[in-house]
Amino acid sequence: MRRKSIQFADQKQEFSKRPSKIGRRSLSRSISQSSTDSYSSAASYTDSSDDETSPRDKQQKNSKGNGDFCIKNIKQADFGRREIEIAEQEMPALMALRKRAQGEKPLAGAKVVGCTHITAQTAVLMETLSALGAQCRWAACNIYSTQNEVAAALAEGGFSVFAWKGESEDDFWWCIDRCVNVEGWQPNMILDDGGDLTHWIYKKYPNMFKKIKGIVEESVTGVHRLYQLSKAGKLCVPAMNVNDSVTKQKFDNLYCCRESILDGLKRTTDVMFGGKQVVVCGYGEVGKGCCAALKAMGSIVYVTEIDPICALQACMDGFRLVKLNEVIRQVDIVITCTGNKNVVVREHLDRMKNGCIVCNMGHSNTEIDVASLRTPELTWERVRSQVDHVIWPDGKRIVLLAEGRLLNLSCSTVPTFVLSITATTQALALIELYNAPEGRYKQDVYLLPKKMDEYVASLHLPTFDAHLTELTDEQAKYLGLNKNGPFKPNYYR
Amino acid sequence: MRRKSIQFADQKQEFSKRPSKIGRRSLSRSISQSSTDSYSSAASYTDSSDDETSPRDKQQKNSKGNGDFCIKNIKQADFGRREIEIAEQEMPALMALRKRAQGEKPLAGAKVVGCTHITAQTAVLMETLSALGAQCRWAACNIYSTQNEVAAALAEGGFSVFAWKGESEDDFWWCIDRCVNVEGWQPNMILDDGGDLTHWIYKKYPNMFKKIKGIVEESVTGVHRLYQLSKAGKLCVPAMNVNDSVTKQKFDNLYCCRESILDGLKRTTDVMFGGKQVVVCGYGEVGKGCCAALKAMGSIVYVTEIDPICALQACMDGFRLVKLNEVIRQVDIVITCTGNKNVVVREHLDRMKNGCIVCNMGHSNTEIDVASLRTPELTWERVRSQVDHVIWPDGKRIVLLAEGRLLNLSCSTVPTFVLSITATTQALALIELYNAPEGRYKQDVYLLPKKMDEYVASLHLPTFDAHLTELTDEQAKYLGLNKNGPFKPNYYR
Amino acid sequence: MRRKSIQFADQKQEFSKRPSKIGRRSLSRSISQSSTDSYSSAASYTDSSDDETSPRDKQQKNSKGNGDFCIKNIKQADFGRREIEIAEQEMPALMALRKRAQGEKPLAGAKVVGCTHITAQTAVLMETLSALGAQCRWAACNIYSTQNEVAAALAEGGFSVFAWKGESEDDFWWCIDRCVNVEGWQPNMILDDGGDLTHWIYKKYPNMFKKIKGIVEESVTGVHRLYQLSKAGKLCVPAMNVNDSVTKQKFDNLYCCRESILDGLKRTTDVMFGGKQVVVCGYGEVGKGCCAALKAMGSIVYVTEIDPICALQACMDGFRLVKLNEVIRQVDIVITCTGNKNVVVREHLDRMKNGCIVCNMGHSNTEIDVASLRTPELTWERVRSQVDHVIWPDGKRIVLLAEGRLLNLSCSTVPTFVLSITATTQALALIELYNAPEGRYKQDVYLLPKKMDEYVASLHLPTFDAHLTELTDEQAKYLGLNKNGPFKPNYYR
Amino acid sequence: MRRKSIQFADQKQEFSKRPSKIGRRSLSRSISQSSTDSYSSAASYTDSSDDETSPRDKQQKNSKGNGDFCIKNIKQADFGRREIEIAEQEMPALMALRKRAQGEKPLAGAKVVGCTHITAQTAVLMETLSALGAQCRWAACNIYSTQNEVAAALAEGGFSVFAWKGESEDDFWWCIDRCVNVEGWQPNMILDDGGDLTHWIYKKYPNMFKKIKGIVEESVTGVHRLYQLSKAGKLCVPAMNVNDSVTKQKFDNLYCCRESILDGLKRTTDVMFGGKQVVVCGYGEVGKGCCAALKAMGSIVYVTEIDPICALQACMDGFRLVKLNEVIRQVDIVITCTGNKNVVVREHLDRMKNGCIVCNMGHSNTEIDVASLRTPELTWERVRSQVDHVIWPDGKRIVLLAEGRLLNLSCSTVPTFVLSITATTQALALIELYNAPEGRYKQDVYLLPKKMDEYVASLHLPTFDAHLTELTDEQAKYLGLNKNGPFKPNYYR
Repeated sequence: MRRKSIQFADQKQEFSKRPSKIGRRSLSRSISQSSTDSYSSAASYTDSSDDETSPRDKQQKNSKGNGDFCIKNIKQADFGRREIEIAEQEMPALMALRKRAQGEKPLAGAKVVGCTHITAQTAVLMETLSALGAQCRWAACNIYSTQNEVAAALAEGGFSVFAWKGESEDDFWWCIDRCVNVEGWQPNMILDDGGDLTHWIYKKYPNMFKKIKGIVEESVTGVHRLYQLSKAGKLCVPAMNVNDSVTKQKFDNLYCCRESILDGLKRTTDVMFGGKQVVVCGYGEVGKGCCAALKAMGSIVYVTEIDPICALQACMDGFRLVKLNEVIRQVDIVITCTGNKNVVVREHLDRMKNGCIVCNMGHSNTEIDVASLRTPELTWERVRSQVDHVIWPDGKRIVLLAEGRLLNLSCSTVPTFVLSITATTQALALIELYNAPEGRYKQDVYLLPKKMDEYVASLHLPTFDAHLTELTDEQAKYLGLNKNGPFKPNYYR
Repeated sequence: MRRKSIQFADQKQEFSKRPSKIGRRSLSRSISQSSTDSYSSAASYTDSSDDETSPRDKQQKNSKGNGDFCIKNIKQADFGRREIEIAEQEMPALMALRKRAQGEKPLAGAKVVGCTHITAQTAVLMETLSALGAQCRWAACNIYSTQNEVAAALAEGGFSVFAWKGESEDDFWWCIDRCVNVEGWQPNMILDDGGDLTHWIYKKYPNMFKKIKGIVEESVTGVHRLYQLSKAGKLCVPAMNVNDSVTKQKFDNLYCCRESILDGLKRTTDVMFGGKQVVVCGYGEVGKGCCAALKAMGSIVYVTEIDPICALQACMDGFRLVKLNEVIRQVDIVITCTGNKNVVVREHLDRMKNGCIVCNMGHSNTEIDVASLRTPELTWERVRSQVDHVIWPDGKRIVLLAEGRLLNLSCSTVPTFVLSITATTQALALIELYNAPEGRYKQDVYLLPKKMDEYVASLHLPTFDAHLTELTDEQAKYLGLNKNGPFKPNYYR
Repeated sequence: MRRKSIQFADQKQEFSKRPSKIGRRSLSRSISQSSTDSYSSAASYTDSSDDETSPRDKQQKNSKGNGDFCIKNIKQADFGRREIEIAEQEMPALMALRKRAQGEKPLAGAKVVGCTHITAQTAVLMETLSALGAQCRWAACNIYSTQNEVAAALAEGGFSVFAWKGESEDDFWWCIDRCVNVEGWQPNMILDDGGDLTHWIYKKYPNMFKKIKGIVEESVTGVHRLYQLSKAGKLCVPAMNVNDSVTKQKFDNLYCCRESILDGLKRTTDVMFGGKQVVVCGYGEVGKGCCAALKAMGSIVYVTEIDPICALQACMDGFRLVKLNEVIRQVDIVITCTGNKNVVVREHLDRMKNGCIVCNMGHSNTEIDVASLRTPELTWERVRSQVDHVIWPDGKRIVLLAEGRLLNLSCSTVPTFVLSITATTQALALIELYNAPEGRYKQDVYLLPKKMDEYVASLHLPTFDAHLTELTDEQAKYLGLNKNGPFKPNYYR
Repeated sequence: MRRKSIQFADQKQEFSKRPSKIGRRSLSRSISQSSTDSYSSAASYTDSSDDETSPRDKQQKNSKGNGDFCIKNIKQADFGRREIEIAEQEMPALMALRKRAQGEKPLAGAKVVGCTHITAQTAVLMETLSALGAQCRWAACNIYSTQNEVAAALAEGGFSVFAWKGESEDDFWWCIDRCVNVEGWQPNMILDDGGDLTHWIYKKYPNMFKKIKGIVEESVTGVHRLYQLSKAGKLCVPAMNVNDSVTKQKFDNLYCCRESILDGLKRTTDVMFGGKQVVVCGYGEVGKGCCAALKAMGSIVYVTEIDPICALQACMDGFRLVKLNEVIRQVDIVITCTGNKNVVVREHLDRMKNGCIVCNMGHSNTEIDVASLRTPELTWERVRSQVDHVIWPDGKRIVLLAEGRLLNLSCSTVPTFVLSITATTQALALIELYNAPEGRYKQDVYLLPKKMDEYVASLHLPTFDAHLTELTDEQAKYLGLNKNGPFKPNYYR
């Protein structure tokens, strides 16, 4: 996912800046912590017993004697299997894909090397790819986000998984290397999230690209890197940009944030929304989702924007368009969703009123200038996980969430249904690239064909018991459309 | 405007089908009737006195002795001037344009021939073009929609206007010809709405295109014709597609329909929305607007869709996605917004319950198969202007609005503010084409540059006392944007 | 209805202040004008032919030779009958009452004298009372609101109706007297709206009360008069206060105003709601309805309140609570719903911005100090029916709607469904009082028993195809309720 | 609070049914767990070290040597103090009360014995009472809900507190007795939540009532008991019913549930709301809040009701009114808010679809017949705290939340702001009863005077920066109101 990978990028930057101990402390702020916390406090306890030994130093073996993996604790496999089963219930499209495509095995012969978050949802994807005929080797794209119990279940099920929660940077690249560099097995497809796997192969094993049919990439960062490669003429295989598919954009941003802004604020602060004054910086899809939700809950919402078109939309949707300075003294909550940097700076923070909550729903941790708060006259007090009180000399407290990192990843969970859409898109992109006739795709970055976007959407409609209308022949002719789509121009959102 | 011009196309088809008397009767259902009704019952009365004489047979002369125009009644000029002044208050962007661009007269030397609806809003546009340096000659693009009093005010003000309410088809082309075919004056810019003016020049005066710098076209139909010309290699000047600019699309469709669906239904039927079951066919921008409004008023709304992506959006927005047949027996209101044909057919109409209201918000009168209701066993009863009861043998009544034509044009008014956006876009498109350096535009159809779209939006923000935020240099650099825009990719909606 | 009767009171005050000619001119601004306009422009034309002769001077006779009525024009009976049939479709509860109660004729022997608005909806009520066994004589409670064609249909159907649109004050009382003072017939039930009929009998025929079993009164004013009579010990029969029944209050105020505020503003000004800044004075049921509707349409809404509890509700519902002075310079629309006087005074009007729309949804024409605008330096310009521009010396225009009278009565229509609830309540109140055993009701003012309120509601559920759940015996016992209700305490709203 | 106390009643019933060990296990499902969890995982760890010793067996002494209290661990006082300070920020009305009333000490001489939840919010109340002059002794009204660290802070501050998390039933009564039965100190005011304290005094120390000036009771159960005493002629002092004050009702039910339904569902299940089909049983204030929130988040909501008036409100608010059986097979979430018993029974549960979430927002754990699920063929699986999967033989899983207990208490937190309203009302009720002149209150149950309700509301307006309008003298006279209120009749909600 777009935002997770950027989160990752941020965290990696911290590698160099912080001594390893502090790095370890910051584990507690990672995305996985928030999600596993709620699922599996039991498991966490078991973890603590063997916390000290690195998985790389342990003997790894599953119940069938297979040892081609590296995870935290194979004993958690049963617990992980249950998590996977729960996820399956909310990922009907992948399950449908398993059924529909099973006979033909469209990925027969595919050797997929993957680097993504290792979660129950990813497990459902991997087992789907396997059911479609693919062989998979997998590493984590984030050092904190691995659900150890899920990795265990995958390993027990025969997958070569190399991932655990709390990897060091060295571990991180070691795991990726173990996925790629294996005797007698060479990948022909890449599924990446953030571009690190792709980067590693470019750097260490460039010859592998001769056999690779394509790359499927889902993150903003990874896609950005691919476009740069393409511009520089260095992209040697076709790549599929999953990040910009309409279903992903709309769901991840508008619909998902509409729910997660409320969830994130409640879990961290228990704030009552009714009557609160809120300023939302940025009225793109994320901002639209946040504003709609808070307005519906009885908050009074102000919006800031730089783009006149989005500004006009905010007006028509019933929000006062202001400059941040105009309302900064009066608001109870400040939310950034601009994708920009230094949107909230020390000067704003100095002027906020006592108790003001500050958080970020945008694309990275740059939006709030948190560094400006690390000055001697201000006291930081951690009052809960992900919640800091920053205290001014006069006693004023600002409530800073997730240290300015992404609220929805740090402090709420992403609905499985949304992940299902992305995972299905990834699977279809793999199938498309793997089976495309010679010449359909050049060494360039592609969007998934509109028709496949529509197919992903259609696979998710049964979840809502939604019944699509079919065009009659006469109507299709009148509109100049194929009855099976695509129905809209590519730019339609 | 997109939908008005199609309305026109439909009505023209009726020319051939109906005897002229019935044609004349149907005047009362035209768009202009609904808008002038509310403004100017007084004026209508005066009209009736000289109803019989054609304007073409009258002597035309304004108070300064000028007679180069053809309108209904110059005596209505004062009344028309008041209407124009009222419109000016809601068109701040054009007024701002007059001020900002007046010094430089960017249209000095421009000779604009126009063919649009002749309304108070158009008058504000024409007087703006004039203030910017242009000379204008104008005809109506619709035989019913001219506000006679506005035409009078324009003629009194020195504009060569050829238009009145209730033209015959012959009158229609005669007026266009009078605009174009005048000694000692040759147009160098075309502003068209529907493509009829462009068509006439192509057909009658193809040589004129040698001096014409470009065409600005705002309707779906007109744009469609231009693309066809372009494909056929017959487009001989650059053309600006105003219809597809984002501000126009969003405002005309989403925001405008959100209001006009309620207004149109109330004015025609006084129906209470609370608790009503409604099915909306189509969940594009128009459907989204209708659904949001009705849901907010307490209706229970069902949606039909053919496109899985829009279908999924409907689900996430809280609407049951159904096939029309599933709910047709139970709904109180049926609204079509598909842009398709025969969405509601006789079979559906037969199954609707007594009192069901049927109307169309889509792009033309094809969505409801009204023709299928003109059978001997059904009785039609006109109960109000724009409202027919169609009565089944068993006494069941269906309430058909505007005979299946566009509800929002026939039975409600379009807010001036929305028209302001379109008119400003037209003015900017004219300026752009007129001043573009040689070679910027080829003989093709162009969208207004994104930056101009944003400029149009920015001119409308003061209406809402909306304050735009400006990027700092650092932020602009971070985002890789120019501080003055454009801020979003072209496809952003 | 509550607000209509107060409207009447206001208008009566004008009798004394204005010469009759101006009184007549103001006809065009009365409530009836707006409702009949939309229904029956045809009929109005016919009207004009015999405008000059007073109905009192005409010979009155229906097709069966009966002449015991006084109306405008018996020839309009067919048209009126159609209007009544249309109303019947939206008044299912009365139709159900006809069916259910027809066998037993619960009003057999009842002689009801009524004084209400004479509209299609009242006709459905009267014909229901008749079907239940009652004899009826009827006058209008408002000099402007009579639908002449409906009166004609009633007269043709054998009802003794005395009412026409545009009565003088003398006509008004003459009609009431004709209802009451008739040889060989003495009323035993009163159905009043405003208290004028009751007042007349008190004043002229006090002995009649010996035979009268009760009064059913629906207006605020009438109810107020009854409570005063009761306090003074002068109420000589039981009276039913229909106005304060919960169904009436909620529907008339919250739900009805939620729709009519939009309708009234659109019909008069065509204003676009999106992005508009609105201040709503008063957050009772009417204010709640207005605010909810405008917020849903994209307006930014401010609220003023005097009551801290309602103020806190406004806050929790997402509205900024302000004093009028704080926002008066910036708002586009001002709406009063306080039930108070001089809420908007000249000082406010002086500070409003150009183009500001001012209207009243509250209980009478006192909320806006319109009189303060009738000073020499201000120019009034009537721009449409019900719409005045008041123009300041500097050119600023305020758009005043309905001269400060009730917007929803003057400029929109009241949904038949809402009137159905009131009419059903009136019918049930009549049945209850007429059949109550000796001693159940004393000479006092009563609210309809809760159970009957619930019965009225239940009769309206089929309209929505709504399915009520029934308590099991066990559940009823657990809750200590009768399975058939009443289910809530009397004060539940 | 109303619902907490009922929760308590439920839990007490479990005393007799379960062996004490299981009782102890169920600690983890109590209300306090969810709230302290999020605040104070650190503290919980410390707890576990001395888990085994009962507080009754420990030596109790604070830093000043005072030992007249019984709590878990005085060392947590600092942590508790911080929690209290955080709460103070959200309870501005009590802080204002401290300031305004401090000079006069309206509770000087008052000896208040209290029995409520011991939370940070209660601590703010107790310290306010103390600041107003009262002496306080306090016990917990719930065996699970005590925040041990807050009890420690209170004890350290000199309050005689007898409460800890996880009391046995014997502990519970022992604590209450220690509050009341103390040499040289006799209470003259009772503040109760659930009626247990009142009950204990009635049973053990009836003579105490001679000195007691009044009882303030806030729970449904407690109020019910008082009315029964009153009916039976056994109430020997005046009592104030805080539960039914309008501010409490509206906030606790409508506004609070609007937020907590979303929060409770997210924290337990991470369910995505968009597109989900939900049935809400009961459309009282709680149901209204739940429905509004879910509709706003994009769910499709069905409602069941027994009361036709509430049913009609549901219709007008845009919800399909159904019987549970009609939709039980298709819904994704079932929510009960009826206050009734056996609303969802085994038959319904058998028919639900796989994955259906079932939870209760109503007044007790009777609404869902959870007992019917404890049969051999069904497997229960605890998947998270408060979340059970109940598994049918065919593999179907129902997701049961909080074992049918109150979702909002078990699985979400109650905003401090809402508790502030209740606590302020309690404080004012104590002041009123304590200072009322002889004879104002008899031995009966009273509602707080409307004016005080309004005062409570007004104290909370500054939180929203809300500015109340004041009546002019002229307006007050016109309305017949005192300028300082009360403004509405008592029944206004």
